Amino acid sequence: MTQQSPEALLDPGRAPTLAGVERAAAKVAALLPQTPLLPLEVDGRTIWCKAECLQPVGAFKIRGAWHRLTDLTPEQASAGVVGVSSGNHAQGVAWAAKRLGIGATIVMPSNAPAMKLAATRALGADVVLYDRVTESRDAVAAKLIAERGGTLVHAYGDPWIIEGQGTAGIEAQAQLAARGIAGPDRIIACCGGGGLSAGLALACPYADIIAVEPEGWDDVTRSLAAGRILSVEDMAWPTECDALQTPETWPINFAVLQARGVRGVVVTRREVRDAMRMAFERLHLVIEPGGAAALAAVLAGKVALTDATLVTLSGGNVDPLKFAEIITE
Amino acid sequence: MTQQSPEALLDPGRAPTLAGVERAAAKVAALLPQTPLLPLEVDGRTIWCKAECLQPVGAFKIRGAWHRLTDLTPEQASAGVVGVSSGNHAQGVAWAAKRLGIGATIVMPSNAPAMKLAATRALGADVVLYDRVTESRDAVAAKLIAERGGTLVHAYGDPWIIEGQGTAGIEAQAQLAARGIAGPDRIIACCGGGGLSAGLALACPYADIIAVEPEGWDDVTRSLAAGRILSVEDMAWPTECDALQTPETWPINFAVLQARGVRGVVVTRREVRDAMRMAFERLHLVIEPGGAAALAAVLAGKVALTDATLVTLSGGNVDPLKFAEIITE
Repeated sequence: MTQQSPEALLDPGRAPTLAGVERAAAKVAALLPQTPLLPLEVDGRTIWCKAECLQPVGAFKIRGAWHRLTDLTPEQASAGVVGVSSGNHAQGVAWAAKRLGIGATIVMPSNAPAMKLAATRALGADVVLYDRVTESRDAVAAKLIAERGGTLVHAYGDPWIIEGQGTAGIEAQAQLAARGIAGPDRIIACCGGGGLSAGLALACPYADIIAVEPEGWDDVTRSLAAGRILSVEDMAWPTECDALQTPETWPINFAVLQARGVRGVVVTRREVRDAMRMAFERLHLVIEPGGAAALAAVLAGKVALTDATLVTLSGGNVDPLKFAEIITE
Repeated sequence: MTQQSPEALLDPGRAPTLAGVERAAAKVAALLPQTPLLPLEVDGRTIWCKAECLQPVGAFKIRGAWHRLTDLTPEQASAGVVGVSSGNHAQGVAWAAKRLGIGATIVMPSNAPAMKLAATRALGADVVLYDRVTESRDAVAAKLIAERGGTLVHAYGDPWIIEGQGTAGIEAQAQLAARGIAGPDRIIACCGGGGLSAGLALACPYADIIAVEPEGWDDVTRSLAAGRILSVEDMAWPTECDALQTPETWPINFAVLQARGVRGVVVTRREVRDAMRMAFERLHLVIEPGGAAALAAVLAGKVALTDATLVTLSGGNVDPLKFAEIITE
């Protein structure tokens, strides 16, 4: 088999659509119960927290993976899939693959949290490690596909993935409606490569979308401000938000974010830790650093609240020592 | 005002009923969204975990308190309520009282977890402390009511409280039905005084009910085996399950438990800690020791699983130092 270039492999072929999000939402609704939409009072206003850490794999990533893998042709399914992920998308793909009887290989950074590596392997996936600083994960994936075959399931630069992640917005909208609230009118989303943000932007076309990134990994924020895709400048910059450590967004994501006027906000390590501790105390949820970024932006007063603000608590896969350190400092 | 004896004060006046549970369920449904029913695989079987730690006060106690306080007459409401609680019922009563504009005094043990004391006060309740080993909380409450007036809202020995707690069973039944599952056919409940267990026994008359208590505080287990109410033998016995530290069940609870053939199971400190760590890792939930007792019984293999086993994760109010210690040991 000839090795395809990462660019050719990653060519998404089509743009994600609201119709696609709605089709994905029907598939997800048949598979998984809605994650709860928890009210939280902040400065006298109620915000609505979408607790995606309660998904079977502990993160929203199961949504996009399910939509993608259930749309494979029988031939594609029998050849297996190759995912690239810092750990949550890995588990989403591995979970969906196991459920569908599809072989899964996942390219993961060697410094991914131990529990994410263990959980992905426990779901039966073949894990291939790479060095986050010195290697391109897309190149590693391309090489693997050249050797073994299979369909690439990118963590965010894929129309199915974007549509699948957007199903969280369809759910939240229905959950708010059940309480007599029109919305969400503002969505604050944790942002790595922009899969969730783009999906929510498609799912809720009337909502104002804010993408929250950790310090040092603010490429989407800078890209949206600059009007073109910029990469992370220092790939060795330390962050606890491993789930949001993506070098750059992809054109398919950027096109949606830009068209919808999405803007970025950056949060500090301190703000993320404060949000994790607050979620422990008041929501009784385990949120990982990357999953607490959106809440951190709210608590730090970096985003104005509206009548129906939705905040994603996007994942909960955090090593116990790290979590213990953060809630007790 | 003449001081009433604790016995007279605690006379419930009526027995709880399934019709009462159903009326309470309608009131709770109008107030709070359903708590999620999370599937968890244990030894190849799926158990259904009712995540009551996600209630606004972090425990199921909000259910009974709401049912009780919304049924007060206007005269009773204006005289206020007096609750007795180790901390979760305290918050449930304080939350409901604040929402309804009713004054609340709560009698709490001086060694209750700091976060429970702080949260109850933050909800506007007047907290009166007593010594768990040397004082009777019912006597303290009776004295307070003689001095200040008000209606006693007992933590478990009250028909409204029992009916209210049972609403968790009505919800779980509907949630299972939505997945095409008839049940629950077995319910494993964390048990202090027997309010939740009795409520669930009324709510789900076809289910087998198992009440789980911590070592040393196994009065309900011993009482059910003996056929009469027995008290805890050593009130100074140490346990981390502060929410389940009740000296004895009450006749109104015992009558329901006995009529339904409920049996008790006892779990160790080690088993409870293992369950908390497992809930952290796999469910991404913060469960307090008392809230993890039922799950502990399952994980320790002390209860056989059925096709539709329901497990209550009844509360999540735990001090961060304690939680950190448990997930990292």
